[in-house]
Amino acid sequence: MYVYGRNVLKEIISAKYPVKNIYFTDSKNVDRSFYDLVELTKKNNYSFSFAPDKVLQKMAGIPKHQGVVIDIGKEFKYAEENILDHLNENSTIVILDQLQDPHNFGAIIRSAVAADADLIVIPKDNSVEITPTVIKVSVGLAFKIPILKVTNLARFIEEIKKMGFWVYGADMSNNIYYKMDLRGKVALVMGNEGSGIRDKVKSKCDALIYIPMANNVDSLNVSVSAGILLFEIYRQKAGD
Amino acid sequence: MYVYGRNVLKEIISAKYPVKNIYFTDSKNVDRSFYDLVELTKKNNYSFSFAPDKVLQKMAGIPKHQGVVIDIGKEFKYAEENILDHLNENSTIVILDQLQDPHNFGAIIRSAVAADADLIVIPKDNSVEITPTVIKVSVGLAFKIPILKVTNLARFIEEIKKMGFWVYGADMSNNIYYKMDLRGKVALVMGNEGSGIRDKVKSKCDALIYIPMANNVDSLNVSVSAGILLFEIYRQKAGD
Repeated sequence: MYVYGRNVLKEIISAKYPVKNIYFTDSKNVDRSFYDLVELTKKNNYSFSFAPDKVLQKMAGIPKHQGVVIDIGKEFKYAEENILDHLNENSTIVILDQLQDPHNFGAIIRSAVAADADLIVIPKDNSVEITPTVIKVSVGLAFKIPILKVTNLARFIEEIKKMGFWVYGADMSNNIYYKMDLRGKVALVMGNEGSGIRDKVKSKCDALIYIPMANNVDSLNVSVSAGILLFEIYRQKAGD
Repeated sequence: MYVYGRNVLKEIISAKYPVKNIYFTDSKNVDRSFYDLVELTKKNNYSFSFAPDKVLQKMAGIPKHQGVVIDIGKEFKYAEENILDHLNENSTIVILDQLQDPHNFGAIIRSAVAADADLIVIPKDNSVEITPTVIKVSVGLAFKIPILKVTNLARFIEEIKKMGFWVYGADMSNNIYYKMDLRGKVALVMGNEGSGIRDKVKSKCDALIYIPMANNVDSLNVSVSAGILLFEIYRQKAGD
């Protein structure tokens, strides 16, 4: 899979994520920060080469690759199931139930890292996956948080509840999100763009929480809702 | 301009927004809610007709028009300058300084209406405008809030400050957003996706506010930031 962009490369290096090769443009029409990035790549012992813009464009599939295309190998490396052993008393898990849009997924990954979440979970089937677009929209932060694929979300929720997690689903309910105690081991479930959280997943949640809205609006863009809820969790955990 | 989608038509009717004509699909493969929408259109004395799917698709420019395409005339009707006379002691204004992405604009419109904002302001130049995509992403809510285009944002900010508005710019600063008093007459300025708020606009703000973030992340998707800030304003104004 070819991913692209300067922030994406920076995050790959910062995460020490293994890649096959990094392609830099051989154009002379580049700025100082481009050479800094080549230096950083060299210093971190990544394999790299230079290629014409049109080769980079072909790999990236778009012209706006910022002179950097990265071959991350056949597949994005999702987290292993034992990632759960690394969670702690203060961990936040983000669960996305059949999200479809890569822009929403990328924006949620960005918000999750920024709000100090520890793990993102998606179902194996009927879900958006990590693609070059998702990685680009996440500004490379997809490499900074473990992303786990599970076969059965309802069963996964049962499992983390046994570990002491409180699981909150974003859905119409009587529980205003900022009146709930969202500290400690918390998981937040966000639903599909059109239909929300599936009933069988919803029934496993400890509580449903909602964002009060004016003018009879009944929902927001899912990446906006996720951002509002994640930053409330972050705020409460910070003690504010 | 042709806009499309069922929610979009519902909001047009609810706003009593004048249109040239409404085109419904003549396909028999439609559900009950489609006929309800035709009835609603009829009852509200809108001009409408039926046409083949391929005609609708050509007008909408995409196949996912949900059987409804609306000709809203040559241009979207922006608000008139005298809209300012209709603001009150509790009004919220959202100012977007050279936003570029139609998905961000649409999502922000949706959040603004949901968070009970009263007015959205964009500059005449170098800004995303209202397009069919923006309207679709706003789920039609672009018809539910006045949207004003101004020649000079800095001058506009000076004007509303004279009216008693406190103007907050979203930018790196020492002011954590939820520690600020955001009640009363408030304007929120959001910047361009890449470069933020322009210096000359920033210098007119009464204060800059920021969202604290973990893991050295320094920004979020602008529609997510706007959502977090708008819902904090809404929460404070609700007294919570």
